[in-house]
Amino acid sequence: MPSLLPSLLIDRRDLDFQLYDVLRVQDLTARDRFAEHSRETFDASIDTALRLAERYFAPHNRKSDLEEPRFDGSRVHVTPEVREALDAFSKAGMMAAGQDFELGGMQLPHTVALAGFGLFKAANMATASYPMLTMAAANLILAHGSEEQKARYVPNMLAGRWIGTMALTEPHAGSSLADIRTTAEPAGDGTWRLTGNKIFISGGDHDLSENIVHMVLGRVRGAPAGIRGISLFLVPKFLVEPDGSLGRRNDVALAGLIHKMGWRGTTSTMLNFGEGEGAVAWLVGEPSQGLSYMFHMMNEARIAVGLGAVMLGYTGYLHALDYARSRPQGRPAGAKDPSTPQRPIIEHADVRRMLLAQKAYVEGGLALCLYAARLVDERRTAADEGARREAGLLLDILTPLVKAWPAQYCLEANDLAIQVHGGYGYTREYPVEQFYRDNRLNPIHEGTNGIQALDLLGRKVTMEGGAAFRLLAREIRAAIDRAASGEAAGHAADLARTWDLIERVTSTLAAGPSDRALANASLYLDLVGHAVVAWMWLRQAVAVREHPDAAFRSGKLQACRYFFHYELPRARAHAEVLLSLDPTLLDMRPDWF
Amino acid sequence: MPSLLPSLLIDRRDLDFQLYDVLRVQDLTARDRFAEHSRETFDASIDTALRLAERYFAPHNRKSDLEEPRFDGSRVHVTPEVREALDAFSKAGMMAAGQDFELGGMQLPHTVALAGFGLFKAANMATASYPMLTMAAANLILAHGSEEQKARYVPNMLAGRWIGTMALTEPHAGSSLADIRTTAEPAGDGTWRLTGNKIFISGGDHDLSENIVHMVLGRVRGAPAGIRGISLFLVPKFLVEPDGSLGRRNDVALAGLIHKMGWRGTTSTMLNFGEGEGAVAWLVGEPSQGLSYMFHMMNEARIAVGLGAVMLGYTGYLHALDYARSRPQGRPAGAKDPSTPQRPIIEHADVRRMLLAQKAYVEGGLALCLYAARLVDERRTAADEGARREAGLLLDILTPLVKAWPAQYCLEANDLAIQVHGGYGYTREYPVEQFYRDNRLNPIHEGTNGIQALDLLGRKVTMEGGAAFRLLAREIRAAIDRAASGEAAGHAADLARTWDLIERVTSTLAAGPSDRALANASLYLDLVGHAVVAWMWLRQAVAVREHPDAAFRSGKLQACRYFFHYELPRARAHAEVLLSLDPTLLDMRPDWF
Repeated sequence: MPSLLPSLLIDRRDLDFQLYDVLRVQDLTARDRFAEHSRETFDASIDTALRLAERYFAPHNRKSDLEEPRFDGSRVHVTPEVREALDAFSKAGMMAAGQDFELGGMQLPHTVALAGFGLFKAANMATASYPMLTMAAANLILAHGSEEQKARYVPNMLAGRWIGTMALTEPHAGSSLADIRTTAEPAGDGTWRLTGNKIFISGGDHDLSENIVHMVLGRVRGAPAGIRGISLFLVPKFLVEPDGSLGRRNDVALAGLIHKMGWRGTTSTMLNFGEGEGAVAWLVGEPSQGLSYMFHMMNEARIAVGLGAVMLGYTGYLHALDYARSRPQGRPAGAKDPSTPQRPIIEHADVRRMLLAQKAYVEGGLALCLYAARLVDERRTAADEGARREAGLLLDILTPLVKAWPAQYCLEANDLAIQVHGGYGYTREYPVEQFYRDNRLNPIHEGTNGIQALDLLGRKVTMEGGAAFRLLAREIRAAIDRAASGEAAGHAADLARTWDLIERVTSTLAAGPSDRALANASLYLDLVGHAVVAWMWLRQAVAVREHPDAAFRSGKLQACRYFFHYELPRARAHAEVLLSLDPTLLDMRPDWF
Repeated sequence: MPSLLPSLLIDRRDLDFQLYDVLRVQDLTARDRFAEHSRETFDASIDTALRLAERYFAPHNRKSDLEEPRFDGSRVHVTPEVREALDAFSKAGMMAAGQDFELGGMQLPHTVALAGFGLFKAANMATASYPMLTMAAANLILAHGSEEQKARYVPNMLAGRWIGTMALTEPHAGSSLADIRTTAEPAGDGTWRLTGNKIFISGGDHDLSENIVHMVLGRVRGAPAGIRGISLFLVPKFLVEPDGSLGRRNDVALAGLIHKMGWRGTTSTMLNFGEGEGAVAWLVGEPSQGLSYMFHMMNEARIAVGLGAVMLGYTGYLHALDYARSRPQGRPAGAKDPSTPQRPIIEHADVRRMLLAQKAYVEGGLALCLYAARLVDERRTAADEGARREAGLLLDILTPLVKAWPAQYCLEANDLAIQVHGGYGYTREYPVEQFYRDNRLNPIHEGTNGIQALDLLGRKVTMEGGAAFRLLAREIRAAIDRAASGEAAGHAADLARTWDLIERVTSTLAAGPSDRALANASLYLDLVGHAVVAWMWLRQAVAVREHPDAAFRSGKLQACRYFFHYELPRARAHAEVLLSLDPTLLDMRPDWF
């Protein structure tokens, strides 16, 4: 039975609105892959996710923050509630929500599966990261592994018995994956022996599962330097016997636990591969294709990171809203009589500013991430090849924004949630400070926001002769046209002006020297990101017209107004620097600091 | 002997530049009060502070973050290094750095004393808060207490034997101090019996000192409701016998410790006064004057908060700079050959952006806080009464900015310091994440930033018929004139345009309905704050012309350029909302969220 209290993980009215009114995911049921689904089965999957997230994930969120995983010299101990949560998650089939029926999956559209998974992130980011990594590793094996690898590993992973990791970063090679040194030599029997040190491996060791399946980037000895020489290996913690039982422990040693600002319930590890005879490894797919396999998966991983940032921002917003409605403090200007009772702080304009900003960030960010997920569904299942291609192109150009914009602005939402709580928000007796700390990782991992900016301006905008950028422009202008009459007409005109500016900026940058253009890539990302989220708000303003709930409708329109009046002008202010190809950053010399 | 390595607490070249070239504090030695001082004695006091901060405060900064004060049922235990640090601090006379010689003080100008104290904040904000509170409490007693109170408490406080607190907030009364309920009744012997509950009392209990001197806001029973009925009481933890020895324990009970996001080395307490027979209390000054006494002290307390935010930002910046110079990662655009060695990340334009932003925030913030401290010196010691009055007016209007701007932007600097460090910055193995967490308190305490915005727009701008605002405008325009030729001429013109805009905004707001004007007060504060910091940068750009260190000079000019090109336009973008008296915040209804 659902709780009678409104959830503090999501505003369900909003999620339903985004899925069914804005994105019309119910239309997907007309496609073969989703023919057995209906709005009812979608709703049921979301209901289940919400129930499990509230029952098994949220209650130990603070506990795993306070009681970090610890290494006793032989084992890494994790709060037992994490295992219970993973069991409940796997038993309900959530690990395979988007997978084929034949793999035991629910074959849900990616949009619906991701929306459901977001609820676990909102409830407990640290615990949710174990299934997230497992699903990502399983997808890599499914996409590029041999039949034997699929049969041996994937069913155990989708059942939640074995947990996956992504072992990319090395101590000297984070943003610069081209420099990784982990090396593999053939053992002569079809397997490889891997040697190298990895760092920041989430879930790299723990007592949560019988086995751990590491997906490791390394180079075949003698492979060329740089990204072209990187291969993908599968390295299990325990070797798997032909009958599927677990054999001896592989040569993968925990070199240490890393202690983070937040996200503390997820073990973060340094791992040494091959301190002894070499870690037994299996090549996944072709040699030297490792990074392209990873990047193949990266679009979806980056949507997942963006959505994680959104969901932490979203639950923080709902907590701040709840607090602002119930906390009496002060009186409105003009009614200062101290003998009258204090009023809920939501009545103060500045508190409303902070709540509206949060609402604009998290609902705008949610719209963006789900739009991207919808593109994944289009790319996979649209009937028409042209539509699939266009969806892929749009997804390519949007991915850096989907990752970076929520990571910045939904983190900002968490900051505002603390501020709404005042002194209480700064204490660990309230949850919002943890949301902030957990969210602070998102602008860093899966490619820092600075890397996303270079990806957007240096690669995506110009890819295929600018085809992705033109497609994005077409979609935005179509939304502007659809909003050109009615309540949002002013915003539509505003976005049209902003997009004209962006086109001017983009061609100026393209015509300028690339070092001067790229130096300001972060500002470009912020400008385009805000315009894209403004587009998401415009889409919502149009879709909400027919909504039966008048208060919901007014709230959407007011948050849209907030975004256009208060946010967009600040992003447009970057245009001066961009149009002048301002060399201030480029000219600064290290010894001048 | 000073360390051979450059300090990570401050760039001493910059501090010297700000004190002597920009603010010319050496000119103060011409005044009677500072006649025994010279640049040499000022330098010596800063040298001592830096040495003590590095030797006694910095080394346990992480330890007190990890090992929070704990209550064993009878005593609150604090890491012993805190006591050692306080001893060293007091023995060096730092507790009385600005006090009269006759009180055993050094009689330093406030500007110099504050600059020195800032180094302790940079080294260890939590430990520095004990002397900060003690000095503030001692100053309150010195300003408003009886001769007996001064004699009984102040010498022990300035010697660091007794530690002070400020007990203002109650569980239901934080921003709204008008609503405090703590009540005092006369005991008939000149003392009072105090009853009430206080929360967020930093240093409210600990084992660091023989006694604790609480400065408590409460109301005499029967006093009028609201701020007019609030009095200031002195309530020692242990009663003091006539011979100065400590008597019985007062009726002040620890109701609990509060666990914070940062600033963890400072005990934060809930205190119950008068659970038994009533806490024995002494009235300080006149009844019903308590809040005015507090506000009297508040200008300086708010400069101290602003400076604390700056110093955390500053040390974070220096750590990020150090990391960026030494961490190789990736290669510049156009030199991607993976067989060449990786390059220090300071060579990447986006890392320079983050470092320049930090530099612009922390050096601009330092200039602002020290400028305000210099006004305190002017108000106290300028020969001419008109000059003293003007300094007081300028200080009044600048105070909300001095508190709020660094609290926001030097916190942002800490956020950028984490980002420069990448994944490492997110770990507790590096110090920058703690700087962020410690700094996050500053936008909340001593009046939230939202309260500062209302203070600026609702009170300070219009005070004395707009006299303070006009004075500020006069000073800014004078600086613009001084910069009108030379390298900063373009920036001067830019600031002139911005200030014209601010004057237009200010009169529009003054002419509009006050609820619509005040609804956007936070944006007004951001706009004026950025303009004021731009003014600080312009002053530095002029003062640096004669500086002998060419790299330092170029760095200052580049940071100034960064601030004018990258920062100021974003603040100016608020003008649209302000000029239209945008009612979006005001119109938002609680049930629309």
